[in-house]
Amino acid sequence: MSKPLVPASFEDWRTIAKARVPSFLFGFVDGGSFDEDTLRENVAAWRRVRLRQYVLRDVSATDIGTRFFGRPATMPLALAPVGLGGSLGRRGEVQAARAAAAFGVPFTLCTPAICSIEEVRAATSTPFWFQLYMLRDRGIVRELLQRARAAQCSALVFTVDLARVSIRRSDIRHGMTSAPSTRTALARVKAVLARPNWLWNVALKGGPLVFGNLKEYVPKATRLEDFKAWVDAQFDPSVNWQDIEWLRTQWDGPIILKGLLEAEDARLAADIGVQGFVVSNHGGRQLDGTAPTAEALPRLAGAVAGRGLTVLVDGGIRCGHDLIKARALGADGVLAGRPWAYAMAAGGEAGVHQWLTHMEAELRNTLGLMGQTRLADVGPDQLLP
Amino acid sequence: MSKPLVPASFEDWRTIAKARVPSFLFGFVDGGSFDEDTLRENVAAWRRVRLRQYVLRDVSATDIGTRFFGRPATMPLALAPVGLGGSLGRRGEVQAARAAAAFGVPFTLCTPAICSIEEVRAATSTPFWFQLYMLRDRGIVRELLQRARAAQCSALVFTVDLARVSIRRSDIRHGMTSAPSTRTALARVKAVLARPNWLWNVALKGGPLVFGNLKEYVPKATRLEDFKAWVDAQFDPSVNWQDIEWLRTQWDGPIILKGLLEAEDARLAADIGVQGFVVSNHGGRQLDGTAPTAEALPRLAGAVAGRGLTVLVDGGIRCGHDLIKARALGADGVLAGRPWAYAMAAGGEAGVHQWLTHMEAELRNTLGLMGQTRLADVGPDQLLP
Amino acid sequence: MSKPLVPASFEDWRTIAKARVPSFLFGFVDGGSFDEDTLRENVAAWRRVRLRQYVLRDVSATDIGTRFFGRPATMPLALAPVGLGGSLGRRGEVQAARAAAAFGVPFTLCTPAICSIEEVRAATSTPFWFQLYMLRDRGIVRELLQRARAAQCSALVFTVDLARVSIRRSDIRHGMTSAPSTRTALARVKAVLARPNWLWNVALKGGPLVFGNLKEYVPKATRLEDFKAWVDAQFDPSVNWQDIEWLRTQWDGPIILKGLLEAEDARLAADIGVQGFVVSNHGGRQLDGTAPTAEALPRLAGAVAGRGLTVLVDGGIRCGHDLIKARALGADGVLAGRPWAYAMAAGGEAGVHQWLTHMEAELRNTLGLMGQTRLADVGPDQLLP
Amino acid sequence: MSKPLVPASFEDWRTIAKARVPSFLFGFVDGGSFDEDTLRENVAAWRRVRLRQYVLRDVSATDIGTRFFGRPATMPLALAPVGLGGSLGRRGEVQAARAAAAFGVPFTLCTPAICSIEEVRAATSTPFWFQLYMLRDRGIVRELLQRARAAQCSALVFTVDLARVSIRRSDIRHGMTSAPSTRTALARVKAVLARPNWLWNVALKGGPLVFGNLKEYVPKATRLEDFKAWVDAQFDPSVNWQDIEWLRTQWDGPIILKGLLEAEDARLAADIGVQGFVVSNHGGRQLDGTAPTAEALPRLAGAVAGRGLTVLVDGGIRCGHDLIKARALGADGVLAGRPWAYAMAAGGEAGVHQWLTHMEAELRNTLGLMGQTRLADVGPDQLLP
Ligand SMILES: Cc1cc2nc3c(=O)[nH]c(=O)nc-3n(C[C@H](O)[C@H](O)[C@H](O)COP(=O)(O)O)c2cc1C
Ligand SMILES: Cc1cc2nc3c(=O)[nH]c(=O)nc-3n(C[C@H](O)[C@H](O)[C@H](O)COP(=O)(O)O)c2cc1C
Ligand SMILES: Cc1cc2nc3c(=O)[nH]c(=O)nc-3n(C[C@H](O)[C@H](O)[C@H](O)COP(=O)(O)O)c2cc1C
Ligand SMILES: Cc1cc2nc3c(=O)[nH]c(=O)nc-3n(C[C@H](O)[C@H](O)[C@H](O)COP(=O)(O)O)c2cc1C
Repeated sequence: MSKPLVPASFEDWRTIAKARVPSFLFGFVDGGSFDEDTLRENVAAWRRVRLRQYVLRDVSATDIGTRFFGRPATMPLALAPVGLGGSLGRRGEVQAARAAAAFGVPFTLCTPAICSIEEVRAATSTPFWFQLYMLRDRGIVRELLQRARAAQCSALVFTVDLARVSIRRSDIRHGMTSAPSTRTALARVKAVLARPNWLWNVALKGGPLVFGNLKEYVPKATRLEDFKAWVDAQFDPSVNWQDIEWLRTQWDGPIILKGLLEAEDARLAADIGVQGFVVSNHGGRQLDGTAPTAEALPRLAGAVAGRGLTVLVDGGIRCGHDLIKARALGADGVLAGRPWAYAMAAGGEAGVHQWLTHMEAELRNTLGLMGQTRLADVGPDQLLP
Repeated sequence: MSKPLVPASFEDWRTIAKARVPSFLFGFVDGGSFDEDTLRENVAAWRRVRLRQYVLRDVSATDIGTRFFGRPATMPLALAPVGLGGSLGRRGEVQAARAAAAFGVPFTLCTPAICSIEEVRAATSTPFWFQLYMLRDRGIVRELLQRARAAQCSALVFTVDLARVSIRRSDIRHGMTSAPSTRTALARVKAVLARPNWLWNVALKGGPLVFGNLKEYVPKATRLEDFKAWVDAQFDPSVNWQDIEWLRTQWDGPIILKGLLEAEDARLAADIGVQGFVVSNHGGRQLDGTAPTAEALPRLAGAVAGRGLTVLVDGGIRCGHDLIKARALGADGVLAGRPWAYAMAAGGEAGVHQWLTHMEAELRNTLGLMGQTRLADVGPDQLLP
Repeated sequence: MSKPLVPASFEDWRTIAKARVPSFLFGFVDGGSFDEDTLRENVAAWRRVRLRQYVLRDVSATDIGTRFFGRPATMPLALAPVGLGGSLGRRGEVQAARAAAAFGVPFTLCTPAICSIEEVRAATSTPFWFQLYMLRDRGIVRELLQRARAAQCSALVFTVDLARVSIRRSDIRHGMTSAPSTRTALARVKAVLARPNWLWNVALKGGPLVFGNLKEYVPKATRLEDFKAWVDAQFDPSVNWQDIEWLRTQWDGPIILKGLLEAEDARLAADIGVQGFVVSNHGGRQLDGTAPTAEALPRLAGAVAGRGLTVLVDGGIRCGHDLIKARALGADGVLAGRPWAYAMAAGGEAGVHQWLTHMEAELRNTLGLMGQTRLADVGPDQLLP
Repeated sequence: MSKPLVPASFEDWRTIAKARVPSFLFGFVDGGSFDEDTLRENVAAWRRVRLRQYVLRDVSATDIGTRFFGRPATMPLALAPVGLGGSLGRRGEVQAARAAAAFGVPFTLCTPAICSIEEVRAATSTPFWFQLYMLRDRGIVRELLQRARAAQCSALVFTVDLARVSIRRSDIRHGMTSAPSTRTALARVKAVLARPNWLWNVALKGGPLVFGNLKEYVPKATRLEDFKAWVDAQFDPSVNWQDIEWLRTQWDGPIILKGLLEAEDARLAADIGVQGFVVSNHGGRQLDGTAPTAEALPRLAGAVAGRGLTVLVDGGIRCGHDLIKARALGADGVLAGRPWAYAMAAGGEAGVHQWLTHMEAELRNTLGLMGQTRLADVGPDQLLP
């Protein structure tokens, strides 16, 4: 598609972003694992869900607001944790967090972010969510939690679908997962030089591009590669339900498990007493060939119905009306990852705000055309079989 | 597809039209809302319906005529209301209305037409249908109805699937929905200059391109944009079934509700006493991701069977044989929108007449090859399961 | 696809043929009616049928021979009647009839052939089948039957799915169905000049390109267009089962009804006492959107099981193994149209023979790999569900 | 796809291989029979199988090892017999056998290999499997078995789905199945000259490219074509279950029947007392339009459950996680053909080793993300319905 005059959809933001950031970085964000079947299916599964159109009902007022763990949100959406996301724009997480705060939805800062908890905290007065990966070094985990608490993070998103970092072909093809050879190093330089604006504004003037939350634990690291190697080595495949009990002792705010796809695991989450979970396959970046989230959602929501958990879902949310579909299938809210990352790459803070405004408009518009006024009242009856 | 020597199908008319009108205008007519899934599905759903072939039956005479509210029609098709449709050719609605009258099918003039009720009335002696949107200013609505009555319009088509104007990406991308920037304004000029014939014949010699029915209510408006802004602001999302009762008091001819997709709404329409309805999703321009009309039709027709309503359907009617499929699935007739708009853009009045002649030939041909002689007798038995 | 060194499949023959004959002629043969859904589905439906692979059975001898109305055939396939087919090569029907005779399968000469019954009879000593369209002028029909009898035609194929000539867009687009305008006439000349070999060898040295069987009835016709107009006007939409009774009185050899798709019609054919029928939709050239023949076949074969009729099928037969699928679904044999036409355009008599040899090889090969030895024994058990 | 910097998937290896070997050779390896439906379906069917994601289970240790007939293997995969495979790289089978031995999985040397049993034996100390075709000359078969025994081959793979060599269009189109004409001979030379590296390193310095196992039986043959003609003539379509009994008397090691697709045949295999079988359609190169192996597998595995046979499967295995799917559907292991051939063409022995390493990494990664630790414990419960 040629570049649109005005971005009108996820595809448009993506097209613009692609033209702004180096190819290996775009590939890192855009790609999924293995054959990318789940990546594609995530999007396709939402589009297969069909909505009923009821007419001649007064829809002049539509109510889409919600509360996440007691705090109000303009609509039931949060910005998903996106590792390295901050490298798509200058101090990217700060820009996104500001846009989210101004619009009124939670921003999630991930462990492998460019901007640190403290940097984001300083830039916005609204509490954000903090995403945690369990690291082998539990001491660091404890410290990260203290820092998040100190920053008044309003929820802890604990990611559980990354027992191992999966295999993403875009990264292999770009030589990002192997020790750099002359050939891949040269290709990297070429890719960066092909995006001089990014080089100047983001990497040089907006640098350093390091993992802000982790730099004190890897003092010798200077390049992103060093951090990535360290993080990859720190992922802990032994994490299990007992670690969640330990986590409970370390964090007294809400805990959201991110990455459940089976009803059995949803029941275990309820039993162990966390406050919520995200039905997620990590945006098609981890286990390829598993269920798209729109298909898994009703099973998991059904399994914990009435137990008071906040059920979220992510993966392939592209349009405002996907929030209605998620709601109808049992979710209390959604997360979106690539959308905000591309809007930020394309337009910085203003871009993220514009994207959120589009999502809201699409949501209200669709709700009205369905003859509905309150998003919270939408259920399976509003879907076609 | 390269331009055909002789247009043989909807695609051919579309190809020719695309080459004649400015890109933003073509995009406005051609596009749908959001991901355009319903737009595509409308067409695909008719094509999935399969016909039985019976042979060795005398089919030398085929009867395809019908009556709409007492008036005869050459075949059970009406030209759908197409806002701005008149801007595709010189005084476009006049040309289309003349072709429809000559051929013997109803033409529907929409509220946001280029040519006014009076202009069309003056150009043809055959009564046409008038399509109404409920405007916030009920006084204007009353006036429009008086004008329609004065023009002897033979039916009132009241559109109900536009509680809100939906989000159409083509229009956003062309900068038609936002305040014009230098960039979008320049792009608009460029698009117009790329179609000098249209500029000369339609916009200049055939102007002014304003909303003919509404100009007296927006005296200060001079450009189409001003009208569009006014109309958009006048759409009333509070319209409900009680307004239909009120409408009943204002119009004593037949009322057709346009835009039903649920059996429940069809039953309400029958209860409230309107004369008919159109199973429609506004040609995929309003609620995206809802049912294609060929799938919804049997449910709605079944819900009001035997109650005397005229059941129409539109969306994706492209071929003469789609009328047979519609009939077999329970419709008394169909509406077609984009087809006449493109035939008019491509060939003016003669183009519309040629398109109607093709539709008739396709319809008779198919009927004969099915071993049937009377369209009115076609039912579900003539379809493959 | 670029031109293959050696043709290996229908697609290859088609590619070569396309490069040899004028575009309007290729389009006439290649195209179907309306949206060409049935044309495509015919091929797709055979490919969806799946075969079982049994191993370790002695398949050194495979028996694929059959008899059609008492006469032996090398394999259960006949060359379908292809109107104008003879114009693809020099005296095309003669070449094809010779190849068929040499290989040992029936050739069907159609009413609208280039070469007359007498010309084909003179060129081959093997009886062929004659295809008849009912013409309004029954006297001509009687004469054609006498000529076919005089030529010892071994079966009469009576086509019943052409109550009306359907609408084929390729022909409309090439201006073949309307009175020639300067534009379409010029395009025609251009298309012919782009194929100088065809012009010289087929049209000039192999001419005249007229309807051989009909020229005496249209003495004033000189161009193919004149004949086509006459034939189109002669098609009789009133033909019905009573005409079959009359036909019975005019022809004492086997009668095959060509063009049945419904079980009900198959039963009527058995009741009226014809010897066989072809399950056919005219190669997707008549009723578009009806059943592909591979799907219809089992229903019709089942309806007349045990009543002694020869059940044939055509449409989309592209490969030798399609004969096995047809047999497994209840057919006694198949017809193929475009395949021989393209092989003839590509390679004349030798081409048709080579294509038949390929079909035989493919058939025997597949039979062996299925662990089967006699084609006649193949039934539904050899198909996967 | 442009050539990737680092190969990350089957497609990448294929892309690189395609650029290295002459087109007719690539086509021979890459192609399938007839329309290549089964070739495509083989891959697609594995991708349709969907995996369950369980989280928060300790997956720090994953166990993927197995035993084939008593001998340990690093993972349950063997390199499939690939006729002429050795011609893709210099002494190709030697390179592949070495890589397989070093990695710890069985290599299968086929009858029509470039390198002889003795050459491969000399190059590696690890026993390999030997694949046998029944030849008409049983004396040669006996001799081949003696040679395999002398080389301590650890299993005999007896291929049964090649009662006849099927029809592969790529080979026909490249003129490889017909007597060479000047045109096809020239095209062959051109194709070879377009790959000078292959010509020099593989054909000239790595020659002679003859069927190593067979050269003593065809002393006059000098070119590959002569061997191919001889082999094709030696294929014996009369082979049946009694030959398996005879084979039993000639080979006292494990016998694996390669090429079963029906449960009935699987039961016969168990009854006759072989040690295992491969559910296979010869990689889509023999009976086209039959079941993809992922669909056939559960039926055959079910039919012999509990009878002690080793159930293998091949066709379309492209990714490490396909081993998990095969295991879940009832297989004890898989074979892969084209993958190793392309890795060898692309990177020689090191390439094959790298490909195996990728497969292992993909397998372990996926297992962990499914929350599983032992491949042997994976069953249908780990699949989504
Ligand atoms: C580039 C990228 C990096 C990501 N990094 C993280 C991460 O650090 N932690 C995490 O829990 N999820 C991470 N995710 C997953 C997202 O939080 C989210 O689950 C996913 O993006 C949702 O799919 P979507 O992109 O289709 O909206 C990442 C996703 C992307 C695209
Ligand atoms: C450009 C355009 C403008 C339209 N404007 C109106 C309108 O003003 N009022 C209305 O009721 N429907 C309007 N429609 C919807 C049509 O009446 C009709 O429902 C639709 O076009 C049917 O689908 P089709 O285009 O596939 O035939 C419009 C459609 C198009 C394409
Ligand atoms: C160019 C062309 C002309 C045909 N003319 C005749 C005809 O004159 N009479 C007839 O019974 N069928 C005619 N047919 C239909 C064929 O006999 C046959 O039913 C059809 O070609 C089978 O489909 P296939 O082309 O996929 O094999 C014609 C088909 C083609 C392609
Ligand atoms: C080029 C080529 C040659 C083959 N030659 C043989 C052979 O000589 N003997 C045999 O049993 N199978 C042969 N096969 C089939 C393979 O052993 C195996 O069944 C098939 O390749 C599996 O499919 P895959 O390529 O998708 O992995 C051959 C396959 C290919 C691609």
